[in-house]
Amino acid sequence: MTITVRILGIDPGLRTTGFGVIDCAGQSYRYVASGCIRSGEGGLPERLGRLLEGIGEICRHYQPKLAAIEEVFVNVNPQSTLLLGQARGAAISALVLAGLPVAEYTALQIKKAMVGNGHADKDQVSHMVQRLLQLDGAPQSDAADALACALCHANHLGGAAVLGGGRSRRGRWLALPGS
Amino acid sequence: MTITVRILGIDPGLRTTGFGVIDCAGQSYRYVASGCIRSGEGGLPERLGRLLEGIGEICRHYQPKLAAIEEVFVNVNPQSTLLLGQARGAAISALVLAGLPVAEYTALQIKKAMVGNGHADKDQVSHMVQRLLQLDGAPQSDAADALACALCHANHLGGAAVLGGGRSRRGRWLALPGS
Repeated sequence: MTITVRILGIDPGLRTTGFGVIDCAGQSYRYVASGCIRSGEGGLPERLGRLLEGIGEICRHYQPKLAAIEEVFVNVNPQSTLLLGQARGAAISALVLAGLPVAEYTALQIKKAMVGNGHADKDQVSHMVQRLLQLDGAPQSDAADALACALCHANHLGGAAVLGGGRSRRGRWLALPGS
Repeated sequence: MTITVRILGIDPGLRTTGFGVIDCAGQSYRYVASGCIRSGEGGLPERLGRLLEGIGEICRHYQPKLAAIEEVFVNVNPQSTLLLGQARGAAISALVLAGLPVAEYTALQIKKAMVGNGHADKDQVSHMVQRLLQLDGAPQSDAADALACALCHANHLGGAAVLGGGRSRRGRWLALPGS
């Protein structure tokens, strides 16, 4: 019997937070949903409140069992770093409140798992997300990053990409010839 | 009839988050409680979870109607700024989830309201907290900062220190002669 585990990936940001939900059954992955939450206008508590509410709603609706969140990097502008940190703190809070174990991955780890190269560009990552989840079109940028984070966690947990026509070796996906 | 408003002040930090609860009735202030929440050991989600839980518990127990949180400053170490930002994001999340309107004050605003000088040192602020709330001893440093933040909000809302033997003018407290 293969158990299906639903994973929620989050790409946090103060303005826009991407989310991606995938099902992972043994070595196969299935796209469930993705999109982004916009914090809108207003003061910081109000904006963080919308982020909390949005992630809470996604958790209630899709009932994921695991969560993975991208680590944010330090910005050249310390004030932006502080704002981004607060958004990420709120996002982690929403996941913890939903009772989810939260894994963290750096952008480098995600890119390495997806493309095999920590310095891959966004288009390459998006392309792999599209292929691995057999999507017809490219997901919106933040949603693609969140899906990549969820796939990275699935890969880390030991699965291998089958649906997408790839196979996993040493923690990263390899495209199969002709796939 | 004088309405009593209970204010919760928060001084956020990743390791230790100070809290202070005061009652504000017209122009008089009363100490209710203060202390600090320690996030303990473990990964960031686990530590933020303890912070969330701690603030949630304080809100349920003391039932404040308003909250005020200190703005954190940018650290020389960007990684510390990021961590502090995440702790503050979690603290704001806990307050928003408790349904509290959250006001934000910079350290400068708090010091100015308390001592009349934005560059006052911690001891001076602690001394004023002690006097205004008629405390027998000096509160622990993070708790004192949180109480100062709550008092700053009370002062901003238009009250004046009476219990502590001061009076408010242009948004800051003045010690009365002989008080």
